[in-house]
Amino acid sequence: MFIGAQVSLYPMTSDFVRVILSGLDALAPYRSHLRIETDDMSTLMVGAPEPLFDAIRDLITRAARDPAHVTLHATISRGCPGEPDEPSCRCEVLTVGQHLPLAERQSLALAAVNGAPVMNLELDIQFSLYVLGQDRHMDEIYGCIDFLKASGTFLRSKNFCTRLRGDAGAVFETLRQAFLRFGPAEGHVTIDLTASANSPSAR
Amino acid sequence: MFIGAQVSLYPMTSDFVRVILSGLDALAPYRSHLRIETDDMSTLMVGAPEPLFDAIRDLITRAARDPAHVTLHATISRGCPGEPDEPSCRCEVLTVGQHLPLAERQSLALAAVNGAPVMNLELDIQFSLYVLGQDRHMDEIYGCIDFLKASGTFLRSKNFCTRLRGDAGAVFETLRQAFLRFGPAEGHVTIDLTASANSPSAR
Repeated sequence: MFIGAQVSLYPMTSDFVRVILSGLDALAPYRSHLRIETDDMSTLMVGAPEPLFDAIRDLITRAARDPAHVTLHATISRGCPGEPDEPSCRCEVLTVGQHLPLAERQSLALAAVNGAPVMNLELDIQFSLYVLGQDRHMDEIYGCIDFLKASGTFLRSKNFCTRLRGDAGAVFETLRQAFLRFGPAEGHVTIDLTASANSPSAR
Repeated sequence: MFIGAQVSLYPMTSDFVRVILSGLDALAPYRSHLRIETDDMSTLMVGAPEPLFDAIRDLITRAARDPAHVTLHATISRGCPGEPDEPSCRCEVLTVGQHLPLAERQSLALAAVNGAPVMNLELDIQFSLYVLGQDRHMDEIYGCIDFLKASGTFLRSKNFCTRLRGDAGAVFETLRQAFLRFGPAEGHVTIDLTASANSPSAR
């Protein structure tokens, strides 16, 4: 299993370089658990889902301490057949938890969101979850959507994606559970994620 | 068939609202061909791939006339089973061209890129193409990667995605061909796309 993400931070300020670099500082505690490599377009993070989603959450949480509007985009992937096996990516939720019936997985996902830490940052999220390589992929998608609607972070469905809104702790736990609890354990599952903070747009 | 995108523009300048609005002006010629609706996170565009990819290309091309670093993110989708049939999305490349053998589709894709207009804007692209709902999705992905490597816009493979670089005309034609020529005609295919212009990062 190979799990990771390509992550980019977009601060809407002329001082964007400083905000990006300060955001990257928030990754320091994760560098012993994740492989982290930054290039001119994005930061690669490879490792288990626990540190992976926490690191992405902390990256935007740190950047959003600046008053500027900031968005984060992440392409998150597990089980891509083109990637090698990576022992550091092992995850018990996948190896054990994924063999449970859909209803039980939904309950465990909700319990995880209820237990998420409070980060004191409200985030708007827009994301698409893709379950690849199996003909019945929409069953798992619909099961995931039912979980999202009960998660407390669901805002609305849109064409091609779903909107969440809530504290950074709860929304990133919702994303992690959506990523891990649905779709086959050994399957290829990806998320196309946008997170937004400090937007001046009227709500 | 339902085809469209959720598109967001991120100008890395404190004057970002003006740059976004000027970018949206570039969509005016497309409003009679595409359904276009903007909310606080993204702009929905629904319609056939010809105006759709041209509109996304022109959006970032206009925004990049400002000197600021700007990125665009798009979630592009065709054939999602959860969306209704939409007559305005009909596309001959899908209904006729998709039944051709892989090698012929690759040749047609290359010819389209060679005939793309020159926009005089160099773009960096990072994208992932997903072919959903069939067990042999990686065959079409590898066929697409062979096309990309021959396209003249290929920069390199990265974990989870592919980098392109070139004129906005050529790179957006490459993306359109990748989206249309690979994966089954009636299948669910998506792209997670980032385009970047005017980046201060060292190359």
